Amino acid sequence: MGIPQKVRIVEVGPRDGLQNEKSVLETEDKFQYISLLKDAGLQTIEVTSFVKPPAIPQMRDATELFTLVRDRLGLDKGVNFPCLVPNMYGYEKARDLGAKEISLFSATSDSFTKKNVNASVDETFERMQEVAQEAKKDNIRMRGYISTAFGCPYEGKIEVSKLIKVAERFLALGVYEVSVGDTIGVAVPTQVRSYLKDFLKSIPLSKTAMHFHDTRGMALSNILISLEEGILVFDSSSGGLGGCPYAKGATGNVATEDVWYLLQSYGIETGIDLKKLSEASAFILGKVQRSTESKFLKSYQSTGKI
Amino acid sequence: MGIPQKVRIVEVGPRDGLQNEKSVLETEDKFQYISLLKDAGLQTIEVTSFVKPPAIPQMRDATELFTLVRDRLGLDKGVNFPCLVPNMYGYEKARDLGAKEISLFSATSDSFTKKNVNASVDETFERMQEVAQEAKKDNIRMRGYISTAFGCPYEGKIEVSKLIKVAERFLALGVYEVSVGDTIGVAVPTQVRSYLKDFLKSIPLSKTAMHFHDTRGMALSNILISLEEGILVFDSSSGGLGGCPYAKGATGNVATEDVWYLLQSYGIETGIDLKKLSEASAFILGKVQRSTESKFLKSYQSTGKI
Repeated sequence: MGIPQKVRIVEVGPRDGLQNEKSVLETEDKFQYISLLKDAGLQTIEVTSFVKPPAIPQMRDATELFTLVRDRLGLDKGVNFPCLVPNMYGYEKARDLGAKEISLFSATSDSFTKKNVNASVDETFERMQEVAQEAKKDNIRMRGYISTAFGCPYEGKIEVSKLIKVAERFLALGVYEVSVGDTIGVAVPTQVRSYLKDFLKSIPLSKTAMHFHDTRGMALSNILISLEEGILVFDSSSGGLGGCPYAKGATGNVATEDVWYLLQSYGIETGIDLKKLSEASAFILGKVQRSTESKFLKSYQSTGKI
Repeated sequence: MGIPQKVRIVEVGPRDGLQNEKSVLETEDKFQYISLLKDAGLQTIEVTSFVKPPAIPQMRDATELFTLVRDRLGLDKGVNFPCLVPNMYGYEKARDLGAKEISLFSATSDSFTKKNVNASVDETFERMQEVAQEAKKDNIRMRGYISTAFGCPYEGKIEVSKLIKVAERFLALGVYEVSVGDTIGVAVPTQVRSYLKDFLKSIPLSKTAMHFHDTRGMALSNILISLEEGILVFDSSSGGLGGCPYAKGATGNVATEDVWYLLQSYGIETGIDLKKLSEASAFILGKVQRSTESKFLKSYQSTGKI
């Protein structure tokens, strides 16, 4: 399998990243962050999550933020601005605001979805069934997140057969892509290699994205293996924004800058301007008042050189 | 090339790590650190560097520290305690104290050795020639460090032919192993793969160790590639002790815990007890008053679980 020439990055900082930051930010700051990410060349930027207030305080301005993005940046100018939608409540919000793409989510493990959204995996798919039917009618694209793809904080290691089953259920809902999420950062290269070999026998490569967390520092090695297995889409968070609710002080999403650095070392195009991206990260990290955990970004910010 | 079953780790925290920490520690604390590393199962622990005072303040107690190690831990009980030796002054110190192994060092680039030891690469080998002759007579084992193996802070990228030439000069001196050092952490997986393929055509695998710095977060990916190329020996620093003098706030040596985590994920034996190793790291990081940059170690310390 050859290394790909071009890779798509799905920037999840404003949603997955901020959701795991304690500081609740001003809507205008979030919008500014999203604008900077767009200026840096990111083609897909997940904006927010339409959950019922007060479920996630960071997301309580979802309507205002998405409206700003729609009105000032535009939803039909070549950049995708998906929003996470957990149920019909969220779906209707997103639809009414004119969203063109929504993200759905479930997990491989009942223990995880029960703690997270108070529903079994089956129940999450029942809820999503209705959303998906409406979205298809409304011509809104859907992407599916699979949490705890490799391991669960409550159930431990997850068998690949379970992961594949959830991916198949997502494809049956009509998503254009599944994002295979190592939510707690337990995946290691041997597991990623072996799981992907099995996974891609059942799920088309063109519908597969990988979503790694760098909780144990393995994200880049796992991405390297994924590239070797042909993967063309990765989720990441600028500056490594976000944390891990299961390990105090630990890292969450892999930093977009880290992914950029690895990809460029392979000569892979991403369309991202590193300088502008690092400015977006510096802006948002300043707002949440912490420094980046990305070693590459630290080095770049300190020396101004790659 | 199959992944190896057993890998040797050369712990360089007390020397390469501490050398790049600002806090100058008490000799007794350094000794305690080395004892804890030994208890954690490390088989090779570089103790110190015999430089002329006051060249490196952290190393001014080299004689006292090595004497403690010799007298309390023993030099013939299965654990190697090498010392860095830059010249005949240092060699005589090491020999007189009964050292059984010394480390020599040079680099691929004149600019680097001139700034570092005020000598061209040729001149470093002239100095080492005399040391090596004596060491052979005295039956003291020698290991050779090659700094700036992949890139130099002053000269940029280094051609692999230059690296191979320096390795050959070390083997001609009689070292049992060369340690190929990415001193400033600029190596990327594609380069490591390509350089190792060329390198191992000229230098025996059994005489090759890799020494990665995690300055840009690439160390584990580079080790993964090295394993795939058959490498059996890696240098690392417990807790990621040390920094990088060329990028403020950046990381130096890859953390031994990170290497351990990657290796165990491949089922590779190291003989290291992670819990004891992390205690050694916690002890020394407390003494230099900073926290680890190893994401795996942070997660392990926070959760008590791998």
